[in-house]
Amino acid sequence: MKIKIINPNTTWSMTEKIGACARMVAATTTEIIAVSPSMGPVSIESHYDEAMCVPGLLEEIRAGEACGVDGYVIACFGDPGLYAAREIARGPVIGIAEAAMHTASFVGASFSVVTTLSRTCGMAWHLAERYGMQRFCRNVRACDLNVLDLERKDSNALRVITEECRRALIQDKADCIVLGCAGMTDLCREISRDIDAPVIDGVGAAVRTVEGIVQLGLRTSKRGEWAYPPSKEYTGMLQGFSR
Amino acid sequence: MKIKIINPNTTWSMTEKIGACARMVAATTTEIIAVSPSMGPVSIESHYDEAMCVPGLLEEIRAGEACGVDGYVIACFGDPGLYAAREIARGPVIGIAEAAMHTASFVGASFSVVTTLSRTCGMAWHLAERYGMQRFCRNVRACDLNVLDLERKDSNALRVITEECRRALIQDKADCIVLGCAGMTDLCREISRDIDAPVIDGVGAAVRTVEGIVQLGLRTSKRGEWAYPPSKEYTGMLQGFSR
Amino acid sequence: MKIKIINPNTTWSMTEKIGACARMVAATTTEIIAVSPSMGPVSIESHYDEAMCVPGLLEEIRAGEACGVDGYVIACFGDPGLYAAREIARGPVIGIAEAAMHTASFVGASFSVVTTLSRTCGMAWHLAERYGMQRFCRNVRACDLNVLDLERKDSNALRVITEECRRALIQDKADCIVLGCAGMTDLCREISRDIDAPVIDGVGAAVRTVEGIVQLGLRTSKRGEWAYPPSKEYTGMLQGFSR
Amino acid sequence: MKIKIINPNTTWSMTEKIGACARMVAATTTEIIAVSPSMGPVSIESHYDEAMCVPGLLEEIRAGEACGVDGYVIACFGDPGLYAAREIARGPVIGIAEAAMHTASFVGASFSVVTTLSRTCGMAWHLAERYGMQRFCRNVRACDLNVLDLERKDSNALRVITEECRRALIQDKADCIVLGCAGMTDLCREISRDIDAPVIDGVGAAVRTVEGIVQLGLRTSKRGEWAYPPSKEYTGMLQGFSR
Amino acid sequence: MKIKIINPNTTWSMTEKIGACARMVAATTTEIIAVSPSMGPVSIESHYDEAMCVPGLLEEIRAGEACGVDGYVIACFGDPGLYAAREIARGPVIGIAEAAMHTASFVGASFSVVTTLSRTCGMAWHLAERYGMQRFCRNVRACDLNVLDLERKDSNALRVITEECRRALIQDKADCIVLGCAGMTDLCREISRDIDAPVIDGVGAAVRTVEGIVQLGLRTSKRGEWAYPPSKEYTGMLQGFSR
Amino acid sequence: MKIKIINPNTTWSMTEKIGACARMVAATTTEIIAVSPSMGPVSIESHYDEAMCVPGLLEEIRAGEACGVDGYVIACFGDPGLYAAREIARGPVIGIAEAAMHTASFVGASFSVVTTLSRTCGMAWHLAERYGMQRFCRNVRACDLNVLDLERKDSNALRVITEECRRALIQDKADCIVLGCAGMTDLCREISRDIDAPVIDGVGAAVRTVEGIVQLGLRTSKRGEWAYPPSKEYTGMLQGFSR
Repeated sequence: MKIKIINPNTTWSMTEKIGACARMVAATTTEIIAVSPSMGPVSIESHYDEAMCVPGLLEEIRAGEACGVDGYVIACFGDPGLYAAREIARGPVIGIAEAAMHTASFVGASFSVVTTLSRTCGMAWHLAERYGMQRFCRNVRACDLNVLDLERKDSNALRVITEECRRALIQDKADCIVLGCAGMTDLCREISRDIDAPVIDGVGAAVRTVEGIVQLGLRTSKRGEWAYPPSKEYTGMLQGFSR
Repeated sequence: MKIKIINPNTTWSMTEKIGACARMVAATTTEIIAVSPSMGPVSIESHYDEAMCVPGLLEEIRAGEACGVDGYVIACFGDPGLYAAREIARGPVIGIAEAAMHTASFVGASFSVVTTLSRTCGMAWHLAERYGMQRFCRNVRACDLNVLDLERKDSNALRVITEECRRALIQDKADCIVLGCAGMTDLCREISRDIDAPVIDGVGAAVRTVEGIVQLGLRTSKRGEWAYPPSKEYTGMLQGFSR
Repeated sequence: MKIKIINPNTTWSMTEKIGACARMVAATTTEIIAVSPSMGPVSIESHYDEAMCVPGLLEEIRAGEACGVDGYVIACFGDPGLYAAREIARGPVIGIAEAAMHTASFVGASFSVVTTLSRTCGMAWHLAERYGMQRFCRNVRACDLNVLDLERKDSNALRVITEECRRALIQDKADCIVLGCAGMTDLCREISRDIDAPVIDGVGAAVRTVEGIVQLGLRTSKRGEWAYPPSKEYTGMLQGFSR
Repeated sequence: MKIKIINPNTTWSMTEKIGACARMVAATTTEIIAVSPSMGPVSIESHYDEAMCVPGLLEEIRAGEACGVDGYVIACFGDPGLYAAREIARGPVIGIAEAAMHTASFVGASFSVVTTLSRTCGMAWHLAERYGMQRFCRNVRACDLNVLDLERKDSNALRVITEECRRALIQDKADCIVLGCAGMTDLCREISRDIDAPVIDGVGAAVRTVEGIVQLGLRTSKRGEWAYPPSKEYTGMLQGFSR
Repeated sequence: MKIKIINPNTTWSMTEKIGACARMVAATTTEIIAVSPSMGPVSIESHYDEAMCVPGLLEEIRAGEACGVDGYVIACFGDPGLYAAREIARGPVIGIAEAAMHTASFVGASFSVVTTLSRTCGMAWHLAERYGMQRFCRNVRACDLNVLDLERKDSNALRVITEECRRALIQDKADCIVLGCAGMTDLCREISRDIDAPVIDGVGAAVRTVEGIVQLGLRTSKRGEWAYPPSKEYTGMLQGFSR
Repeated sequence: MKIKIINPNTTWSMTEKIGACARMVAATTTEIIAVSPSMGPVSIESHYDEAMCVPGLLEEIRAGEACGVDGYVIACFGDPGLYAAREIARGPVIGIAEAAMHTASFVGASFSVVTTLSRTCGMAWHLAERYGMQRFCRNVRACDLNVLDLERKDSNALRVITEECRRALIQDKADCIVLGCAGMTDLCREISRDIDAPVIDGVGAAVRTVEGIVQLGLRTSKRGEWAYPPSKEYTGMLQGFSR
């Protein structure tokens, strides 16, 4: 099975980390392809960044379709472009926020999200609502870290995040924690051990979810909202996106 | 007051129609600038189209900011890129679905949306939820017209839409109708007369909403979710979108 | 265009203040008529007051209909008698809570209401729910001021309200503020300047909303819940309200 | 125990019917006082009627407080003035829509409301939401009868209502029926027998609910939203309502 | 009228206390039968306990049906087995959480629940949702008492619970209190006096609710979800439960 | 990895079918143990049946814990005893309704459930709400088949179910179908082929979900609602369930 993980920002060090973590949880028969798009923001920390990462992301989906990819993971906690991607993909496309929240609801009666910047908390709440996970989400907490702080060797990110997770358990009475950034994927097990509670990393959760769906013989339904989009002429710089 | 209306598809005949209708309801002191982006789809009929119209749309917002625009209207019923646009604009940015639904809730205890393709009904429901208007929305009905059918002189669009509106009044017991496509803006008054019920066109509603907000001295709050986005390097084809 | 603003309490100093503030935001072509009813409470601070202000308010709507008023504003944050007023009016009737909350949702991703007495907080929450604005409302905060404190020259109302607004921004992480009493209308701009965030006054917001709806050629739908009420005999002291 | 039932319209034949039906279900130790107000509409079929019946209704509550009434029933399916009445009463005040819907949720997993005019359906839905009963309410159905048709000896009301109830069971898959008008109180048992399903009359349900609350030693909480209203001067025709 | 109260745990001292309190609020014509099942947990403090108390509880319902019981109360705040009990009973079956929450919504605009162990708070929230009472429920607070602490003469339960109730009034701004355990039934009046607010004990509330329903001539609807269950063979230790 | 699937009814032919289907989708390294409890109903078609299958089900969980099972599937569409099972299990416990609904939300924007008896539709809706999946669930449809009809060789179950699925696609505009009974597990692929849409069988979905969670190193959180239950004495026939 071939799973393509798209880190929709263009910071390849993060992409490689994501790929490595994905391979650690994937089945031995699964091939993990981790990429960043050819264009877009170096990190995603606003609605603006999120909107602008989507063309590159969709380009990668199109490329994946052309070479037999079975399913996709969108490795940014805002799940940008998820429904557009589903329209143009045959197999499943799973966002890491989506996968993490669903998985959290299986192992705890409630969860809190611990993310980077407070300006993105509203987006996480919106996703929780959209996926039906709002009822399990006790809180969305920001660490006031930049996404790229997670890539710096000397950053205090692990300590700051772990402390915020601990506060979530106590103050929110959350049963478990959802990590709110793809860049935290490598910290998951260590934090879980430290705080002695389940910590869910969306990258791993999404890989396993895609594997499961493909193995069940299921694909994205092409009957309604996610049917292939109508053929359409695109103009200007985006002409290449015509279908 | 200067209001810029961005039709996020690249079909200029529609853009001109939108501009003309906007001028008919705007205050005499309001200058209406109606544009299409330099890039993107000729019509918006899928999540894919919607995602891909956003870069061009945001380019227009940026251009507007550079030349003193007071407020913006996004003239596509999916309200694409609304929150990203709010982040980079100083004045208000209003989507036509948003404006139409809110306005409908002022003149009727319930409304139904009449739109083009059935595949977009889910998007309209999602917007209704996001804006808190779901409780007033009795139904979202598709006419199975393509967006560009509305631009063809010989199309039966007016008749088909009017009939669907009539069915909405009777079958849904809706008090009024929301037109679900910017391209229907010129049909609003005629349909209203025919079916003898309020029919709300989002283009007009959005223009008046922007005017009102600007006149009240209000601007987009820069405190939380819609603060200016952090500076960021963009790569590849989208390098020009760096901030 | 003729807009009638009804302050449903009988304190004319407040009515005049409301009229003056309304004129400051209205279009130059709009005539503002601000009145108090001939009967009812001097201020509205309970369900009991709210219920008892309605007959006088509806008397004013009836009088307005008889002399060509285009639209109405109900200038009390409980929006008393809103639906009854809509039944007997041809043009739009807008409550100030309704207008303020909707407007707030356009300029911020969230708002908090700052009102007078804590006993009325539940009513504000109920309105937020009814209008679909609950999802944007972070908190309803009381200053424990009486409504008529806002009319006393020597009161510390401005200071107390400003401080509560500031707390709302910080503690509730609200993007903007909705003022929860018509009597605060003259404080709006000063508070906004002090706290450096959008502050929405319902009186102004409602005037602009009515203007917009009238300008769009829309009127209250007479098809369903807000159709003209059936003719009916009234007895006793209220005989004059027969239709 | 003394329970005062206020039929908020001024049609005394209905009031007497309500009183008689109430006495049939009340405990033998309960004294039922059934009254109509001294002023207001002869029947309640619009928001306008509903608003205008409240002064007379509150006058009756005040009179009841002065002579030792233990609890009150508001016998109109719109539950007009419920919260205002609670503010000025010491004992419980129960609306018949409220009591009927709650009771229905105890004997069936779902209910449908069968009421008089379709223009009032929205009000019933709003009450269902306010009381938390929306989740049990499958439908609100109108028979297009006037309220006063229920007082005419020769009307076909019983047949029409029974048929609508039957349709509700089949089409809505409702487990039981809530009668949506105080004037239907005398039809309850006959309809129930005919359709072989529980039919809930709000008058009876409210009487038993008030009895239960009083017997438990409970009274309306005076801590928050329903505390006694602040003293207030009233002017004009309503001067007598000053507190 | 014969009402059977089933304390689903097997601690008979609690059962007797429950029976005594029930008799204090019941009508003089009501016969109260209070029992514990022949099998199950000595107290109910987990989903596991709750699930395992149900067979014994249903055995008691079956026994009650065989000897003319008119209605039932399930006297555990988790309302275990409520819908199964309704299926096999002809008359009404009311849970004490259900009765208490509904009753609270009649005497206050909001309530808080004060219960024993924090691990059961989620269950109380779930019931509030299921009954439509979530909108009135401000908080669910645990005292970290074991259920059986309420049976010990020397326990400090009364003091601890009263303090938690007081905190609920102040911190949650609750209008009244719901006691979250059948074992607190005898403390209700004393706490109410101490904190000067309505305190609702579910045992009393449920008894009065059952009395009311029976007196109205209503029974559990046998049309839909609560129809008698299909005949079925049971095997093993539970063979006796075949129907 | 060892996964135990508990078919909570005592019909072993169904249990074996479930086990066989589970093995077809499980990873090659997964050992599937499929069992029925030693006691309880031969099929589950009511709240009563559902309640009474739980003791036997929990006995099997306890047995599984004693011999190193990594995770559990509850193979009845009512997900009986799910939270109790989670309390006493170390690894994940997944219900088939839960798994099927979550999975459906990944491959379609909406789903309809097709189940056996109409009396169980309410239960499916309740689960959809509890899991946050209500927003994706268009309808719950019954085929009016008994559960054991699915075990009869000569039954017309496949045809009846397939037709109902087809109606769901057209009438509900559902993007995909959730099969509402464990006994339908072997029909999944054939129906999917026939109706040309994704059909989700909960047994397969749950097996893959458990595998994924275990592989991610996650276990049921023992911090809050699903902590191990307090030790407790059980009496009578259920004495063996003491902990």
